[in-house]
Amino acid sequence: NFKKKPSTTELVSEILNQNQTALSQAITIIESTAQKHQQQAREIIEKCLPHANKSIRLGITGVPGVGKSTFIESFGKFLVSEGKKVAVLTVDPSSSISRGSILGDKTRMEELVKEENAFIRPSASGDTLGGVARKTRESIILCEATGFDVILIETVGVGQSETAVHSMTDFFLLLKLAGAGDELQGIKRGIMEMADSIIINKADGENLKAAKLAKNEFNRALHLYPAKESEWAPKTLLCSALKNEGISEIWEVVSNYFETVKTNGYFQHKRKEQNKFWLLQTIESRLKSEFYANASIKIELEKQLKAIDENRTTPFEAAEKLLTLQK
Amino acid sequence: NFKKKPSTTELVSEILNQNQTALSQAITIIESTAQKHQQQAREIIEKCLPHANKSIRLGITGVPGVGKSTFIESFGKFLVSEGKKVAVLTVDPSSSISRGSILGDKTRMEELVKEENAFIRPSASGDTLGGVARKTRESIILCEATGFDVILIETVGVGQSETAVHSMTDFFLLLKLAGAGDELQGIKRGIMEMADSIIINKADGENLKAAKLAKNEFNRALHLYPAKESEWAPKTLLCSALKNEGISEIWEVVSNYFETVKTNGYFQHKRKEQNKFWLLQTIESRLKSEFYANASIKIELEKQLKAIDENRTTPFEAAEKLLTLQK
Repeated sequence: NFKKKPSTTELVSEILNQNQTALSQAITIIESTAQKHQQQAREIIEKCLPHANKSIRLGITGVPGVGKSTFIESFGKFLVSEGKKVAVLTVDPSSSISRGSILGDKTRMEELVKEENAFIRPSASGDTLGGVARKTRESIILCEATGFDVILIETVGVGQSETAVHSMTDFFLLLKLAGAGDELQGIKRGIMEMADSIIINKADGENLKAAKLAKNEFNRALHLYPAKESEWAPKTLLCSALKNEGISEIWEVVSNYFETVKTNGYFQHKRKEQNKFWLLQTIESRLKSEFYANASIKIELEKQLKAIDENRTTPFEAAEKLLTLQK
Repeated sequence: NFKKKPSTTELVSEILNQNQTALSQAITIIESTAQKHQQQAREIIEKCLPHANKSIRLGITGVPGVGKSTFIESFGKFLVSEGKKVAVLTVDPSSSISRGSILGDKTRMEELVKEENAFIRPSASGDTLGGVARKTRESIILCEATGFDVILIETVGVGQSETAVHSMTDFFLLLKLAGAGDELQGIKRGIMEMADSIIINKADGENLKAAKLAKNEFNRALHLYPAKESEWAPKTLLCSALKNEGISEIWEVVSNYFETVKTNGYFQHKRKEQNKFWLLQTIESRLKSEFYANASIKIELEKQLKAIDENRTTPFEAAEKLLTLQK
């Protein structure tokens, strides 16, 4: 264990010693909205950065009821048995500030949580997906500095959370059930397109036949998409997380993926592109929030909206007027 | 006809006299990138605004080959025969500055172009969809001031052009062919979801049977979407633009739509929302372009990207640094 209020140097040195208590404390500082923690958070990240970037990052999504927790429990335990250190993070912009969800997450994965080489941390709470996503990305850095090899990032599939998780992971895994009828949703929201592998879960007992049919259907659907820049052809696999079946085959596919993309350079390329995406994303959301927070712009915006409604100006004229107020 | 270089007052007064030559000249001024035309364009729009907003605006999309021009020709002629004045605009961010496309558009609709109560204007040229869309929206105002009752806005279906046209029209019409196999594209890009009506074109001769089957399929697919805020249930119709079949039925559906949404208030609500959308859109694209055009930011952006690539900073730290340069 570890003392209650360590200095930044102490914290970072313990993180590099693979101390999970220190990791937890550091993530809490990153997630804090208190002013005094902002500077400390920055320093911790800066000091951890040179030791980060060494893991593989897997995104996991699927509709509620598909068995994400059971899958992560099985998959995580398998990875630990293979000698890997596994961290599990969740992106859930809807999660509340209460500790309830933490207990919830740990209960959901009650065996994995007992493993010495596993670390489970539920979503940062926050009002915006952007804020939650930023904190999760920073937590990845700390997990990597603590020596975790595989980071599993679960998304609850609310709103744009899949896109956020996709843009911070190397490999994106979509969990499905046979005959659940949510294919249209997956296509519409671009989730099928992001998947590097589709796993049909609960492929056991009476479900097995339907799961095999679904596997063929998904494989056909995947062929309708253009080839990926990664040169990787997404694979559909069956699995029963509950019965621990199909887990090692999934790891084999994931390993093949990383072999492919580390060889052809896509791995490094994608991480660069992701960094650039987050840079531009942060800039643009700050530009907007600062503009609309400006007091005189707030007042004028109301006036201009009224003028537009009354047909006295165009949206374009109104925009010009508002933009001059910023100077 | 009309003189070559009229004053703003002369132009606007001729527009209100329903002079199409004046309308053409005014649109050319709006589309001009010359500095001297910017102020004049603003004045023209301002003076036309109180006379605008009285038409109905229909967006028309469909993949190349679906028969958009033939459809607009047939549909436009039908509307003229019903005593309507029809203006046809096109949003095509890929169109070049050459007069070729103008001749092209007019040749494509060679009968409609001869009608006194029809006006056909091809896309403004421009590098960005935003620029082209803005000019088209302003052209709508001028067309309305010239007394056009129905504005047809065709999109070529490149990139985000459907979304742009959807956000400047009251009713969105998706043209389809039976068995063309582009359903997945339509769902993926959210185009099916935007449609207020799906028209299966070329429903004639040997195609008729397949078209009827497709109609049922599309109706089924449309039912998978949640109910629209407009309370309008999208309709699928058959048509042969070439043989002039099914055209009056389409107009009937369009008329029903406007009856519904003018009664339930959605018509006015949607136009307000569209205006707000364009206001925010214009502001946000200007904030971004001004930020990235700043010389010192340009230089620092390169440095920060390099620092991120070399793992010396995070995208979030880098964004903070760049944002301080703006002040």
